[in-house]
Amino acid sequence: MKKLEKITTQEENFAKWYTDVIKNGDLMAYGSSKGSIIFKPLSFGIWDNIRLILDKKFKEIGVQNVNLPLLIPENLLNKEKNHISGFNPELATVTEVGGKKLSEKFYIRPTSEVLFGDFFKNEIESYNDLPLIYNQWVNVLRWEKTTNPFLRTREFLWQEGHTVHADANEAEALTKKMLDVYTDFVEQYLAIPVVKGQKTEHEKFAGAEYTFTIEAMMKDGKALQSGTSHYLGQNFTKAFDITFKNKENKLENAYGTSWGVSTRLLGALIMTHGDDRGIIIPPRIASTKVDIIELFASKDERVSKVSKEIFQSLINLGIDAKIDKSDKSAGFKAANSEIHGTPLRIEIGPRDLNNNKVIIVRRDTLEKIYVDLNEVSQTILKLLEDIQSNLLKEARKRLNHNIKIANNYEEFKKLIENGNWVITKFAGSAEDEIKIKEETGASTRCIPFNTNIDIKNKNCFYTNKETERIVIFAKAY
Amino acid sequence: MKKLEKITTQEENFAKWYTDVIKNGDLMAYGSSKGSIIFKPLSFGIWDNIRLILDKKFKEIGVQNVNLPLLIPENLLNKEKNHISGFNPELATVTEVGGKKLSEKFYIRPTSEVLFGDFFKNEIESYNDLPLIYNQWVNVLRWEKTTNPFLRTREFLWQEGHTVHADANEAEALTKKMLDVYTDFVEQYLAIPVVKGQKTEHEKFAGAEYTFTIEAMMKDGKALQSGTSHYLGQNFTKAFDITFKNKENKLENAYGTSWGVSTRLLGALIMTHGDDRGIIIPPRIASTKVDIIELFASKDERVSKVSKEIFQSLINLGIDAKIDKSDKSAGFKAANSEIHGTPLRIEIGPRDLNNNKVIIVRRDTLEKIYVDLNEVSQTILKLLEDIQSNLLKEARKRLNHNIKIANNYEEFKKLIENGNWVITKFAGSAEDEIKIKEETGASTRCIPFNTNIDIKNKNCFYTNKETERIVIFAKAY
Repeated sequence: MKKLEKITTQEENFAKWYTDVIKNGDLMAYGSSKGSIIFKPLSFGIWDNIRLILDKKFKEIGVQNVNLPLLIPENLLNKEKNHISGFNPELATVTEVGGKKLSEKFYIRPTSEVLFGDFFKNEIESYNDLPLIYNQWVNVLRWEKTTNPFLRTREFLWQEGHTVHADANEAEALTKKMLDVYTDFVEQYLAIPVVKGQKTEHEKFAGAEYTFTIEAMMKDGKALQSGTSHYLGQNFTKAFDITFKNKENKLENAYGTSWGVSTRLLGALIMTHGDDRGIIIPPRIASTKVDIIELFASKDERVSKVSKEIFQSLINLGIDAKIDKSDKSAGFKAANSEIHGTPLRIEIGPRDLNNNKVIIVRRDTLEKIYVDLNEVSQTILKLLEDIQSNLLKEARKRLNHNIKIANNYEEFKKLIENGNWVITKFAGSAEDEIKIKEETGASTRCIPFNTNIDIKNKNCFYTNKETERIVIFAKAY
Repeated sequence: MKKLEKITTQEENFAKWYTDVIKNGDLMAYGSSKGSIIFKPLSFGIWDNIRLILDKKFKEIGVQNVNLPLLIPENLLNKEKNHISGFNPELATVTEVGGKKLSEKFYIRPTSEVLFGDFFKNEIESYNDLPLIYNQWVNVLRWEKTTNPFLRTREFLWQEGHTVHADANEAEALTKKMLDVYTDFVEQYLAIPVVKGQKTEHEKFAGAEYTFTIEAMMKDGKALQSGTSHYLGQNFTKAFDITFKNKENKLENAYGTSWGVSTRLLGALIMTHGDDRGIIIPPRIASTKVDIIELFASKDERVSKVSKEIFQSLINLGIDAKIDKSDKSAGFKAANSEIHGTPLRIEIGPRDLNNNKVIIVRRDTLEKIYVDLNEVSQTILKLLEDIQSNLLKEARKRLNHNIKIANNYEEFKKLIENGNWVITKFAGSAEDEIKIKEETGASTRCIPFNTNIDIKNKNCFYTNKETERIVIFAKAY
């Protein structure tokens, strides 16, 4: 049994806090090869829940699951030029089998647009066959130079949706719809508030007409791109000759979209809610919602009896609970529950039982609540809802508070240095974005769809050209 | 919209029947690279259901899901010699990234014993940390020379369980337990009866002490290994230095197991139940359980009204149904429902409605049943149960009927040629097994745990040595 190690505080060193927390919280272990991680039961349980919930939402809007191969033959990837040039440096390449060189190379998928393109080509004859709205839950690989558990790993898990449509408007509407599905899910289940918007030309997906994104703010102020939805237009359908007979009986290229969220969401969850005691898992996504801790159980047989009763009443309500039966001290068990982010813990001891009471401790506020035995279940139900909404509320407060306006480059630099997001008028080019990133570390996160921030400045903070375009900049994971 | 093509009959050419059926039944498409397939919504839906149901059974016995990396570093795979030599010729190898050669090669996992070994090593200190009972649902790759959709593909999906224990007995009991979990699942959900047994030394898993297997019989008489459970003893824990402090405070190597079922089960399901009209999906694993077909709906408005009512009453009972709204003929819709293996279809037409009746057609027996409108739901519920048990019963009858005794090699050859499984006394060596396979195409499937077949012969059918060992031979997929 591992001992609990001291966690570096967030204020001291946020990056160190993060790795301390994920290791001590039994979320991950490093894999056998560089840049790879092992999802331990706690983190994979969260991903499993994300999959179950999102998959249900997908199916409600007609998404069907499929599964396409891992490997992309060399000739296939070269068909869409922007796409291949975007991914080329990161492609893990299979060149031999059993020590023998292959006549053709295969790339491990970094994403599957080209595989779906090659598949769709043979599935469609007329507009009657459209739309095809497919999704897969798979692993992908991008040979990143710098890696960070959950946030940027060489292999990661995700869902990637790929669709083709007879009509551009329908495809564009779906691109938007999926961003809304992601937004609702991330806010309502992961309790992470996001800013919705469109990526600049420079930051859009390689091969897309445009890219929508949801951006979340971590506790250190950095942005984390948490989900993207791409309108591909006819870029891939032309490259892959995906045509259909339209209602006028003429051949036309179909219109595509693709969209995905990944195991980065686990990183987002940890860095949005976690505190100096460990992670905090929002109740709606937590597998174990309540830890039950017995005090002096060997000295008072009422303790185990009540503990079992409470456990059973929670299970009957569909609330997953666990009784910590280890031979550790009660203090250890409490700290252990906290570091693993269980939303609530119940402490059952003889003294409180004398008054027919137990203690419930909230993981988010650490508040201790004395509750009558006959009110435990109802209190738990209410507290779980409270925690869920409180986590979202606190995170939204932080998000709103930390987005600031910059009117010129000097203000911009100061705000970025302070860990703020900057919202500002921006008319710069891709080259300007590259330069700003080199100088400040900040990149454009999105052109937000809605903002209730009134920017009086009429000109671009950087080029001083007059512009209507409002852009959010931030340092990002 | 694709037309339905003629399906080769099973009698004419079973292999051709199989490919006709899976293509026309929209189960798969060939992938962009040789030996790879695409799981279309129907087949992936079945796999999704297999995953959901099995995963629940796993969790009931304490299995936890994790996720380990796809790539195995070269040095790691070489640690267990029997294991590496078993898999080496099939290993897809990553040697370069973005056109640049890597300093170390990486193998795409053919299975993950070594990755789990490397992981477990760091997770265990004392017997208190054991057992670890982990599982992952992932893709693996084995570069097979000959491939067959679902049955043998270069990439396939599976679950692989990996466990370590402080006690050999406990590990051996789990090895057995998992075989029982598989047996129950395959028989009760997929309606596929199996023979449980142990693999011979020659056929066991590379690196295992012994291998348990469940073997199913396809409609052409061939065997299909449908699930395996391996007792690994200390083979991997010694190679990977997985030790724990036992109760006497001495360091000891842990005891391991691994076990898995794969997307081969889809092939087993198709070839166990399918007929000349297409596949048949057992109700308990089918996503769509009932197809509803409207006759003359444009001429009689009662048809659509009743169709909607029946649909809704089925959905309310938790029975997934679909109304075929395409503009095809009723005959096409019926054939389409049959080829996709939907357990039941309901035909709703004006003539039967005049008598307050609809027709229900069973996919397994093709029997047509006239049912009063107010009895539809209850009849459907009953029929779904009937179909489930009938499919299992028919398959078990075939299995029992086709296992025959051979007393000598001549009888053996004739039976194998006739497509039978042969049960017989066998004392031969690995070399004998290789020779028999070369001469007859048959391999040892297992040493069955239980058999009520009385084999009078005291000697091995092949070596003529006296032996108690009963073995089943068959041609296999």
